[in-house]
Amino acid sequence: MNIGKVFEVPNRWVKADGPQADIVFSCRVRLARNLRDFVFPPWGKKSHLKEAARLILKTIENSDYFKNHWVFDMNRISLLEREFLLERHLISKEFTRGDETQFLVTVPGETISIMVNEEDHLRIQTILSGLQLMQAWEICNSVDDRLDNSLEYAFSPKFGYLTSCLTNVGTGLRASCMLHLSALVRTSRIDDVLKNVSKLGLVTRGFYGEGSRAQGDFFQISNQVTLGLQEKEIISTVSRVVRQVVKEEKNAREYLMQHSSLKVMDEVGRAYGILSNAHLISYEEAMVLLSKLRLGVWMGIIPYSISVDTINELFISIGPAQIQVSQGRRLSRTSRDKIRAKMIREKLSNA
Amino acid sequence: MNIGKVFEVPNRWVKADGPQADIVFSCRVRLARNLRDFVFPPWGKKSHLKEAARLILKTIENSDYFKNHWVFDMNRISLLEREFLLERHLISKEFTRGDETQFLVTVPGETISIMVNEEDHLRIQTILSGLQLMQAWEICNSVDDRLDNSLEYAFSPKFGYLTSCLTNVGTGLRASCMLHLSALVRTSRIDDVLKNVSKLGLVTRGFYGEGSRAQGDFFQISNQVTLGLQEKEIISTVSRVVRQVVKEEKNAREYLMQHSSLKVMDEVGRAYGILSNAHLISYEEAMVLLSKLRLGVWMGIIPYSISVDTINELFISIGPAQIQVSQGRRLSRTSRDKIRAKMIREKLSNA
Repeated sequence: MNIGKVFEVPNRWVKADGPQADIVFSCRVRLARNLRDFVFPPWGKKSHLKEAARLILKTIENSDYFKNHWVFDMNRISLLEREFLLERHLISKEFTRGDETQFLVTVPGETISIMVNEEDHLRIQTILSGLQLMQAWEICNSVDDRLDNSLEYAFSPKFGYLTSCLTNVGTGLRASCMLHLSALVRTSRIDDVLKNVSKLGLVTRGFYGEGSRAQGDFFQISNQVTLGLQEKEIISTVSRVVRQVVKEEKNAREYLMQHSSLKVMDEVGRAYGILSNAHLISYEEAMVLLSKLRLGVWMGIIPYSISVDTINELFISIGPAQIQVSQGRRLSRTSRDKIRAKMIREKLSNA
Repeated sequence: MNIGKVFEVPNRWVKADGPQADIVFSCRVRLARNLRDFVFPPWGKKSHLKEAARLILKTIENSDYFKNHWVFDMNRISLLEREFLLERHLISKEFTRGDETQFLVTVPGETISIMVNEEDHLRIQTILSGLQLMQAWEICNSVDDRLDNSLEYAFSPKFGYLTSCLTNVGTGLRASCMLHLSALVRTSRIDDVLKNVSKLGLVTRGFYGEGSRAQGDFFQISNQVTLGLQEKEIISTVSRVVRQVVKEEKNAREYLMQHSSLKVMDEVGRAYGILSNAHLISYEEAMVLLSKLRLGVWMGIIPYSISVDTINELFISIGPAQIQVSQGRRLSRTSRDKIRAKMIREKLSNA
């Protein structure tokens, strides 16, 4: 499977067409599942895990849900290509090691993906634009149901789905939203808000999930507990908290508009000015500036027709591995910074 | 005399029409003169100095050279207005104290100006665009000649013109050029070049003369010694050294174009981006960014028709006192930064 294919179909979930997409970049649901008759990945022998993978891939192959799908053998693609998939939020950091038992299945548009033999035999993921966790859950659940027809999952009537890590036992479900909280950061309210989120039993993380720091004012909110709850309860708890945070962010934006509009206009203007005129730009700087621009679009203070879509798309496409895969080779930092600056300039001048 | 008049006539010497004006922002010649029959300013009684001023002003009044001229009584204009004149390089820092014996005479376009009772009874100054020290000297000399017809200067056949400070005795002449040495700064050659300049007996200073630091890569080069030399010798020494420095700067610019063009394009692009999109900008930051833009214009890497003229004009017009005088009142730093940003945005978008 040539990884270049992934480029040919636009990444579906970066289109900012979901509800509250100006603040909720994306929502994600993932299910952890294991096969009853196979040792779980952390303890399984490679030969057994390969056999489990073979079985899973065959089942997927035969499912009508996956008429059009892509399979990537983690051991057969380069590290750069694995980094490319990581940047697109299709695989986890752990999955970039390139183990021969590991496979990624995804579909054009990348809304559904399955990691085979990550921490669990199956990690089924759905990502959608904006705050539509329930829809994401329904898609994920329906994929899970089809697979469940052919695969025998490790399931305990007492505990629910069994997983490699205790934190996933029960529903095996993690529901998360990526939020763009520029105004809460600027009004210094972010710490309070995140503290409240964790009091409600939810976790906050950065742009690239577990262990990553908040970048460009993006924060991921997700559930902690999966045991002893119904799936829909989890989904509605996360949705409710996210809606509350969105409301707080909107209030903070209104506040900024009224009390610091000049300062924000300056910050956004400068971000736009640099992005549309730089000839060398690092990934980190570009993320921070694009985040400011994204706030500016919401506030209507960008005097040009730049859309949130355009900015979302850039967030993904300017990743170091995206640039290198698009050029077909490893590049020096300077070369990447040069290409990134050009991509951004062109994108913004076309807008 | 209403200071607003000064705004009505464009500042002549900021037009970048002199030779080498892309590197030599301006050249300046000033003559220090004193009246034989009056104690020199540092030691004179106020009443005597007023009498000297009266005599000088009457002489100027009657000179055909000053048919159209402006006189500012330093004691009658506000501190803000004095700062305004300082920013326009019409008076010295010392002259902003507003002593009742002190007057400024200048003409529309501001190429000629005379400070009365600064350190000496007369400080006659000519500023022109680019490297035309000889022409500036000729104008200054001709003004001096006319005044000499009516005033009796303190002159010693042995020492020449007598002045309050020993460093000016002799010709009383200071010839200086303001150079924009962006490439020598960026190639780290500036220190060597300035060291050589001082070995040749010349002095280097910042944008606002004595005691000011180099701002936005501007350096002033002037003669140190005035005693024991003919005026034309001084002029040609300074001109020769400046021509040499200009040559070095040009070489450094060629070098930059060949070896660091991407880095320079990035720096200039970002400067342009910020200047044309900021909503708050300090004087210091604007000077630094305009200096980069000025280099970009020379290098032809600004894809817009911005001229050195436009940039030179901004260098003067964005001064804190210029902005406040144009608004007719003292303003907070934030208000000034806001107006300055708007001025720059409009100027660059009109270009």
